Amino acid sequence: MAVYQATASAPVNIACIKYWGKRDTKLILPTNSSLSVTLDQDHLRSTTTSRADSSFEKDRLWLNGVEEEIKEGGRLATCIRELKRLRKEVEEKDSSLPKLSSYAVHISSRNNFPTAAGLASSASGFAALVASLAALYQLPASPSQLSLIARQGSGSACRSLFGGFVAWEMGSKSDGSDSLAVEIAPREHWPDIHALICVVSDDKKGTSSTSGMQRTVETSTLLQHRIKYVVPERMKAISAAIRARDFEAFARITMQDSNQFHAVALDTDPPIFYMNDVSRAIIALIVEYNRVSVAAGGKLKAAYTYDAGPNAVIYAPKENLKEIVELILNYFPQAEPFKDPFGLFGAGAQGKLVEGFNAAVAKPFGVGAVKNLIHTRVGDGPRVLAPEEALLGPDGLPKA
Amino acid sequence: MAVYQATASAPVNIACIKYWGKRDTKLILPTNSSLSVTLDQDHLRSTTTSRADSSFEKDRLWLNGVEEEIKEGGRLATCIRELKRLRKEVEEKDSSLPKLSSYAVHISSRNNFPTAAGLASSASGFAALVASLAALYQLPASPSQLSLIARQGSGSACRSLFGGFVAWEMGSKSDGSDSLAVEIAPREHWPDIHALICVVSDDKKGTSSTSGMQRTVETSTLLQHRIKYVVPERMKAISAAIRARDFEAFARITMQDSNQFHAVALDTDPPIFYMNDVSRAIIALIVEYNRVSVAAGGKLKAAYTYDAGPNAVIYAPKENLKEIVELILNYFPQAEPFKDPFGLFGAGAQGKLVEGFNAAVAKPFGVGAVKNLIHTRVGDGPRVLAPEEALLGPDGLPKA
Repeated sequence: MAVYQATASAPVNIACIKYWGKRDTKLILPTNSSLSVTLDQDHLRSTTTSRADSSFEKDRLWLNGVEEEIKEGGRLATCIRELKRLRKEVEEKDSSLPKLSSYAVHISSRNNFPTAAGLASSASGFAALVASLAALYQLPASPSQLSLIARQGSGSACRSLFGGFVAWEMGSKSDGSDSLAVEIAPREHWPDIHALICVVSDDKKGTSSTSGMQRTVETSTLLQHRIKYVVPERMKAISAAIRARDFEAFARITMQDSNQFHAVALDTDPPIFYMNDVSRAIIALIVEYNRVSVAAGGKLKAAYTYDAGPNAVIYAPKENLKEIVELILNYFPQAEPFKDPFGLFGAGAQGKLVEGFNAAVAKPFGVGAVKNLIHTRVGDGPRVLAPEEALLGPDGLPKA
Repeated sequence: MAVYQATASAPVNIACIKYWGKRDTKLILPTNSSLSVTLDQDHLRSTTTSRADSSFEKDRLWLNGVEEEIKEGGRLATCIRELKRLRKEVEEKDSSLPKLSSYAVHISSRNNFPTAAGLASSASGFAALVASLAALYQLPASPSQLSLIARQGSGSACRSLFGGFVAWEMGSKSDGSDSLAVEIAPREHWPDIHALICVVSDDKKGTSSTSGMQRTVETSTLLQHRIKYVVPERMKAISAAIRARDFEAFARITMQDSNQFHAVALDTDPPIFYMNDVSRAIIALIVEYNRVSVAAGGKLKAAYTYDAGPNAVIYAPKENLKEIVELILNYFPQAEPFKDPFGLFGAGAQGKLVEGFNAAVAKPFGVGAVKNLIHTRVGDGPRVLAPEEALLGPDGLPKA
């Protein structure tokens, strides 16, 4: 008896031009285009195994070993249905193929980072789901075509179908068929882009991005200006900066757009805050770090960006990461030694400031204000993994 | 020998539609109109005595007993020069008047609230300066005419020339002659409007409003939309709300405009933050307090607003102030007992929540997070005070 099973992993992506607002909440069509950097799966990834079997009674899914309900008409069901539909098209063209589209599927998915890290796992999760089913069904679809389906799971998931630097073109069609991800540049074009994720502790439960962005669409008087005038220009400018490997321009636009996303969140009624005093302090540190460089005739050396939460992601050329880690450690002592995947530090990382840095731009915080530091870099797109990586056992249930 | 001396006091004002951005930094001409509530001088005021004497060698000014330099071409010098010019016009029409315009002046000014309170004293200070010199010179100028001069001392000072509800019309002329304050309604029209000022501790030195607003003008891509489309509509709507004593509309616009001001500050490069985690928590409390009321079929009961700092000013009809003080005390314990100028509490104020309030919208803070609570209300415009209130002694120097 043949086993029809495939395993894939997919990366996290962090946007430089932010997605905030849907023009169609069912199809997940955005009010503006967005652009992200795909992070390295060696450090952060979702892995998913999908199996189709005629003996399965219904579609089932386990997330980190816990079964999740696949709600009818929900986002998971939509993605599975769309991929089965594409499989059916393939089967109709080649009657020799097994009729996998008629079988139920079992899906097991895991993230290699804790949910408690506060990192959005829906993008990598839906991308891995789509990639594993596409591999199972041996679909001839391109990443952009698959991104149309991932988008319906979680908007930003569409950008995790590519590595490198990825745009989500908002499109204009009402059926969403042109709202998809495209590669601006692969990781190999600019592998020098590294990222430091500062996981920030927050004692306040934030507004979910799904409900928050629609409140912004309904109540912000500034959002329409952003959508119509600001984002289109920034998409062009940052795409050009990426093609030219111009970190100065990339950094400036990334920081401006993070700020503007949080500005329109604040312009919402009632206002939405995702950044807290720790987030603000990290911004002050990066602003000062850049100021010192520019004052000495240099260029911007780092760019912060914040999604719908207090965590900072700091993008920078690899050569600056040592200074940046030392800068953050100087203000945010860590309970655990810095995990140093790129071997920047010999004897262990210590807090330190670059010469000329005005230490008074922020106050030192206590242990735990920044809970964790993750050093990663630009990465590749979804990977199809070897059978031994499978997350489903021979019984079609998640491995322990 | 005649003594030419006058003393006046002037109030603080807190804007509901925020002033942020100058189109002319020398004349202090704003990029948008603004609107404020004048607070009661019985609680917060600046008092200024001005004396003209032929024996004085030069113009001198003392602020809270400390002499301040009157810089040539500076804002203080401009205000004094303009008032002397108006006096000269009066003297030219009536040659029997003493030639005070040719005398130097001594000016002594005091605020009855500590600078440490974090309340902007420049508005009440410049308004009191202008009011005292206008009284000394016996100028036939209207408050709006005087507001043209106060505006050149500190933009928002022009609004402190009136009591009640005051608009600063931005004007369009390049000489600034139509950029002045007008009364929307006197305090007697709506005396029920009370205010609770929450003085918030901040360990971070904020960006000065003078430099901050110009950085916003230069770098925010959202500000122009606010100036051109949002503020004009809000000015009309909130003026109508005040005329109709419609607290619901007044509150909604006030909160939206506070949020939008802070949104454009955040959209500045580098971003400007004035609110901190304590400010955010107070917003969350007021949002929840209003939610409970609306959920029970009622209306908005309070409105927060934040200037260029972390302090909250909460506007509300008098009848809600007891609940609001209790709400704030519930989360922000005070070192000193609540000063209760309106006698809301018999045995002393205690923290308490209204029925149905979701206590989890904010965490309780420690003593000192909110340093002080000041309960006041809408107030009158500048007052000319009796000679015995003078801040200058017979020698023309500040009284000890």
